[in-house]
Parts: sequence; structure tokens; C-alpha cells
Amino acid sequence: MVDEKNTLKTEIIENFGTPCPVIDLDVVERNIARAQKRCDDAGVANRPHIKTHKSPRLAKMQIDAGAQGITCQKLGEAEVMANAGITDIIIATNLLGAARSGRLASLQKTLPLKVCADNPVTLAAYAKAASAAERPIDVLIECDTGQKRAGVETPKEALSLAAEIKNNPMLNFAGWLFYPPLDGWPQTTQFFNTVSNGLSELGMRADIVSTGGSPNFIHISELDGATEHRAGTCIFNDLMQIEAGVATLEDCAFQVFTSVVSRAGDERGILDAGSKTLTADTGGLDGYGRILEHPTAQIHKFAEEHGFLDLTRCNDKPNVGDIVRVVPNHVCVAVNMVDQLVAVREDKIVEVIPVEARGMLV
Amino acid sequence: MVDEKNTLKTEIIENFGTPCPVIDLDVVERNIARAQKRCDDAGVANRPHIKTHKSPRLAKMQIDAGAQGITCQKLGEAEVMANAGITDIIIATNLLGAARSGRLASLQKTLPLKVCADNPVTLAAYAKAASAAERPIDVLIECDTGQKRAGVETPKEALSLAAEIKNNPMLNFAGWLFYPPLDGWPQTTQFFNTVSNGLSELGMRADIVSTGGSPNFIHISELDGATEHRAGTCIFNDLMQIEAGVATLEDCAFQVFTSVVSRAGDERGILDAGSKTLTADTGGLDGYGRILEHPTAQIHKFAEEHGFLDLTRCNDKPNVGDIVRVVPNHVCVAVNMVDQLVAVREDKIVEVIPVEARGMLV
Repeated sequence: MVDEKNTLKTEIIENFGTPCPVIDLDVVERNIARAQKRCDDAGVANRPHIKTHKSPRLAKMQIDAGAQGITCQKLGEAEVMANAGITDIIIATNLLGAARSGRLASLQKTLPLKVCADNPVTLAAYAKAASAAERPIDVLIECDTGQKRAGVETPKEALSLAAEIKNNPMLNFAGWLFYPPLDGWPQTTQFFNTVSNGLSELGMRADIVSTGGSPNFIHISELDGATEHRAGTCIFNDLMQIEAGVATLEDCAFQVFTSVVSRAGDERGILDAGSKTLTADTGGLDGYGRILEHPTAQIHKFAEEHGFLDLTRCNDKPNVGDIVRVVPNHVCVAVNMVDQLVAVREDKIVEVIPVEARGMLV
Repeated sequence: MVDEKNTLKTEIIENFGTPCPVIDLDVVERNIARAQKRCDDAGVANRPHIKTHKSPRLAKMQIDAGAQGITCQKLGEAEVMANAGITDIIIATNLLGAARSGRLASLQKTLPLKVCADNPVTLAAYAKAASAAERPIDVLIECDTGQKRAGVETPKEALSLAAEIKNNPMLNFAGWLFYPPLDGWPQTTQFFNTVSNGLSELGMRADIVSTGGSPNFIHISELDGATEHRAGTCIFNDLMQIEAGVATLEDCAFQVFTSVVSRAGDERGILDAGSKTLTADTGGLDGYGRILEHPTAQIHKFAEEHGFLDLTRCNDKPNVGDIVRVVPNHVCVAVNMVDQLVAVREDKIVEVIPVEARGMLV
């Protein structure tokens, strides 16, 4: 989707206007197949993280391509996916704030969920929800091996939580959840081996040993004993994935079609896509996305509905009325801004895909 | 809403879970009344910018308090407001990307809109949409007096566009749209006087002379000839408004109730509100919002559903399971993340207000 495609641009502007988020389904399918093959080759199950697309339509494409189940990051996502008929779901976070409402129990009543925890307070909330649902709930212990995000920091804490699960009839121990740092697979192996030994001593076993992250595909075989991998962004890709060396521009399935709406100054311009379209999340990169038609035009600042262009390094400057395509730095947060994506194949609009699980409180 | 209110927290967590965006309607009403009074005192009409709340319910509260009409920033917002019965609407942006779809014409057919432009390409698109709607459209010329956002940079350009409007039977000249920089009211006055003289020479007049911005309330009387003011954020307020000196913490009507879901390290913690709840928009401030219960706990980083706390300067550290309230840096983008707001009065939940105009493409 890198060449000029005025036919598609005309179709987009006439049918939807701009800004308009567009996905190329051919690229999506290629990305789905590649992720599946990477898991197949590593001998682990594929459990794509649907936080990137929040769409049952796309989740089912992933399952049809071979994924064993899905990963969600919040209860609202799991509700939407379950409602669409998807049954094998890990919610990969301490779901404490949702568990203490009645909603976790309601969903757990309809299908057996797998949830995650790194502390006893969350475990207690899960047990209470499971009791209300009258169905024990599967729990993975989240382990931190260097990211300093969620997850217990030591095997000792992990095993203490496993023992607590063992002692609670409403909780089933399901396994370990890891999100190794890119350079952290050796310490993840060490952590895993320690908790595995401890688990045997408790007379327990881990059915699931889950690793995660799209950039981590390059290490996917390195944890002996892993049973599955969770990757989200790779279905669409973005500038962060390119920066991480795991995608090229041709692998980026998502673009925002946006109009140049002002050229009030010689060296500046304005797009009709701002922080409410592309988000203020830079992902640690310079600027706010790459304009395919004008790669030297920098989106250097956002207002809510405007992207401000610095054109000082741009020889071929865009004109008012031009429609340009922007690949975002971080696609997961950009998709989350809109209720629907326009899907194309070979420069033709083929369908409109609702982003059903976005906008939810919990 | 600064004191501990465990009853409300319990109600929120049991009915909705966390994260949960909450507005205090008493504070909202106070803020609405204050904005109206500021406009009344200055002798200008109040045209609140609904991009902050995107809710017809709240727009009608503003109109009931005396607002003459509303300001929108995108067509989808105007569609929702028009559909709710609001008829006096300025869309304060070059609406080029929406005008070139059929949607501007469709809306203009149902009611006479006021739109804005800073260039001839946008004017041409408006004329075409007005023709399709079989109703001339009112156009304001957007003038930049130092913000370097949208708007013509010189009175000469402004007058050239006014003349172009005069010569097009499908366009009505409605006036001038300004968004003065905080220190830019003198040059705005100069710009306005120059275009006013030029306009007289063209045999035209400006019915509307519109200024904008919540922090600009402190200058509102300074443009002699202004007819109305557009302010958005002041209905809720946020840390940016406090930083600008136009609000206090007690004026902040919007808070995200969020749970502490992890305390994996002694000096760190994790909230269940991340960039998909509070957004990565810092508004130029340090950190990502203020935790009312723990003002020295810094939200220093976001994952999509997690806020990472630096607790090194925090003597009274939050515990897992605590529900805390976060006032965001920039409320307009935070409201835009969710489909509904929970409204309270005196610590009781009184209604759920849909954020109807969010999630739209255009």
C-alpha cells in the first residue's frame, strides 16, 4: 500500500471522508499466517492478543488460521469475544477492578475463563467471583523477569501464590504467564526452571506456560517448556515494530487516510488527524507517525483533531486537499480510538469492521 | 471530591468496576454557570465547545444555562448534537475531509450550519456541499494571530477569502474565528481592526466575531467587537487548567476511579488505568495525572491498560485493592476514550451519561 492509489483515496473520501482508518486485509492475512507459522515452527500454541484489533471478526480470522485461543487485556474485551462465540480466553492482567464488580462472575458463569494474578488480593477477588459464578476459575500466575511491569519478581512469591491457589477450592492453578524483556529470555528460563521445581514439590503442574510480545517472536523457541505465545501488534504492525526490526513498511496493514486541510505557512501544514485519531502515544519514537507520500514531512505536534506538519525538510510539500496515508507509531492505541475500520483488498473497499470491544469502561 | 469517600468508591466498584470515569454534576453545574457568567459579564454570547464532553445531555445543560449555541470540532459531533435537537452549531475547523464526503451536505440539508475555513480549497468543498444540500452555508474565516495552528496568517488573506465568499452564491460570510494566544490579544485586536476596515470596503459585515479557549476567559473583554466566546475544557477542568491558573482542584469535575492492582516492587505500583483510559497526552506536564489520595505517587509511565507508579517520594504508599481517584492532565482526550461517564452528586451515583459523539471516524 505504499504507491499512490488515487482510486482508493477517492473511494475513501467520497464514502467516509477523512480522517479514516483503513486496514488492508491481504496484509492482515499475511501477518496472521506469519505469526501462526512462527508459533507452529516453535512448537507452541498461538494465542493472539486481541487488544490490538478488539474485533471478533479479526479474532476469528486468527482462530481459523490456527490460533488455539485468544488473549484479552480487560474484561470488556473478553465479554465481547465470548459473546461472539470465542471460548478459550486468557485475560492477561490482574483483573481486580473488574473482578470486584459482578461482571467477572457473570462472564465466568457462561464460560470457564483463564485469568491472571500477581498478588493475594487479586486471588481473593477471583475466588469470590468464582463462587458467585458457581464455577472454579483457572488462574495463571504472572511473573516478571525484568520488564518491571505486572508480575511477581521472585520464584518464591510465585510459588507462594501457587500454593494459595492449591488451597482454595474455587481456584485452579493453570500455569505461568511471562512477558520476557527482549534481552531477558535467559533469566526467564532460570525463573521458569526454579518455579517448575518448586511446583513439583507442591505436587502441582503447569498446563500453560505462556510467553508474550510481537518483538519476542525472534526468541520464541528459547524457553524450553513454553506451551504458547501471545502477540498482538503483529496482526497490523506499526513504526514501533519496524523500529524493533520485526516488520517492514509493507507489513503495516493499518493506515489513517487523512486530508491536508491547511497550509497557512510556507513551512507548515495541518492534517485532519490529531491526538483523538492517532493518539499522543509516540512509542518512544520521534514524531507521530510516518506520512507515506511525504516521509520527510514530520508530524511534530498534535491538537485534538489536527496534526501539525513541519515541512522544513520536505522538498515535495503536500497541498491543501491532498489525501495522505499515515502509519502510526503504535497501532494498538490508534485502533482503540474509533468504532470501525474500513477494510480494503487490492485498493477496493470490501467491508467495514466494527471495533466492538473499544470504548468500554472496564 | 478530595476527601476519602469510601461509600462512593464501594458503589463505583460494585456497579461498574474500575477503571471508571466519574463526573460530579454539582461541580459541572458550577463550572457551566461560571463560564456563562464570564461571557455575560463581558457582554458576549457563550458558545461552549462540546469536544470536551461530546454529550448532548451536557450540551443541553450548557444551553439551558444561557449558551447561545455550541461549537463542534468535527462533523460527527455536529451530527450527534443536531440529532439531539441542537440547531445553532459552529464547526470550528477546516472541514475539508468531511465536506468531500456526502455527510456535510446531508447535515446541511437538515439545518443551517456554520463552518470555518482558512483556504480556497475548503471554500470550494463547502460550496459544493451547500449546492448538494440546496442551501447556502454560513462560513467563518479562521484567523491565526500567533498560535500557529489553523487560520490565515494575514488580514490580506482573510479579506481575500471573504471576497471569494461574497462572490459565491452558495456561501454566506458569517464572520471571523479567532483563537488568540494567551499573550496575543493585542495583536488579535490589531488583526481584527484591519479586517473590519477591509470588510467595510467590500460592503460586507461580520455578524460573528468569535474568540476561544478556556484559559482565555481572563482576557475575554479585551477584544472590542467580539460577539461570542468558545470554551470547552472549563466544563470539567483538569491539571492543565490548574497549571494555567484558571481552575483549582475543587473545580475538576472529572476523575477516573482506578484500582491499585499490583505492588510487585517496594517502590512501585500499578493502576488499572493506562494510556487507553487516561491517554498518553501529558499536556506538557510531568506525569500522567494526579492521584488525589497520594499526590506524591507519580504516574510516570503507561502501558495500554496499566499506569505505573513511582512511589519513591510517597510516604503513605497505596496498597493492592485501594481505589484511588486520578484527575487527568487533559480531560478532553480522556473523556474521548469511553462510551459513558458515571455521574454523581454528593457522593451518590445519579445517572450514566453516554459520550455519544465519540469513536466516530469523521
